[in-house]
Amino acid sequence: MRHPIAAVSAAALLALAGATGLAEAKPASLYAPSAVVLAVAQGEDAVTVVRASTLSCAPTAQGTHPDPKAACAALNAAAGTLDALLAAPDANRACPMHYDPVTVTADGVWKGSRVSWKHTFSNACTMSTTFNGNAVFAF
Amino acid sequence: MRHPIAAVSAAALLALAGATGLAEAKPASLYAPSAVVLAVAQGEDAVTVVRASTLSCAPTAQGTHPDPKAACAALNAAAGTLDALLAAPDANRACPMHYDPVTVTADGVWKGSRVSWKHTFSNACTMSTTFNGNAVFAF
Repeated sequence: MRHPIAAVSAAALLALAGATGLAEAKPASLYAPSAVVLAVAQGEDAVTVVRASTLSCAPTAQGTHPDPKAACAALNAAAGTLDALLAAPDANRACPMHYDPVTVTADGVWKGSRVSWKHTFSNACTMSTTFNGNAVFAF
Repeated sequence: MRHPIAAVSAAALLALAGATGLAEAKPASLYAPSAVVLAVAQGEDAVTVVRASTLSCAPTAQGTHPDPKAACAALNAAAGTLDALLAAPDANRACPMHYDPVTVTADGVWKGSRVSWKHTFSNACTMSTTFNGNAVFAF
């Protein structure tokens, strides 16, 4: 003989557990998350990070970045392709040729997809000249 | 004949460029940066991120995370080894066996080093049971 009450409570328990569990995987809101940690490190391998900023661009621009609004606008303009930040160097500025590499990284999530980006400049002057006033790594 | 004035100004210019460039690679403060983007994604590959939080733990606990203080304390307790977050599952809770994977990621910088961590749970209930109230991914 089956035990309807026991069967029902087991099913209810399972449904409850399933519902609770699934609820946690659902989006908390309608926007796709965009949040990154931007870092500047000495050397080629980003092992010694000297500065880092958090930046969240959805639903509003915020973070420890000094100008989240401008940085989010610049990232939106780059359409998530972070190499686009390297596309407009200041042609009128010269840099010394010494090799003292600086590596910039951007890790996190952009419009719902995980991102991990890294670029090494031969020195900090080259970095500054290449970014040419772009707000993203201006911290 | 050498032109001392021209030589001096070229050297001064180079020194200035070098100094300006180098200044940007120096740490802005005395603490090692600790900032991460924590994300929860549907699936095994973290391609569809449903929620993300920023968390900066130095010099103060802040971010879009709902409880930055508790999350930073939990990360400090894990000593940067994020697998430690998986070490104390709730032994008294059962989960359904269905496979609906949830992937959690932590990307950014911890105490001056770049970090990238990923773990996939077979479903959200397993995730919740494994984290067992830990504040880091409670958002």
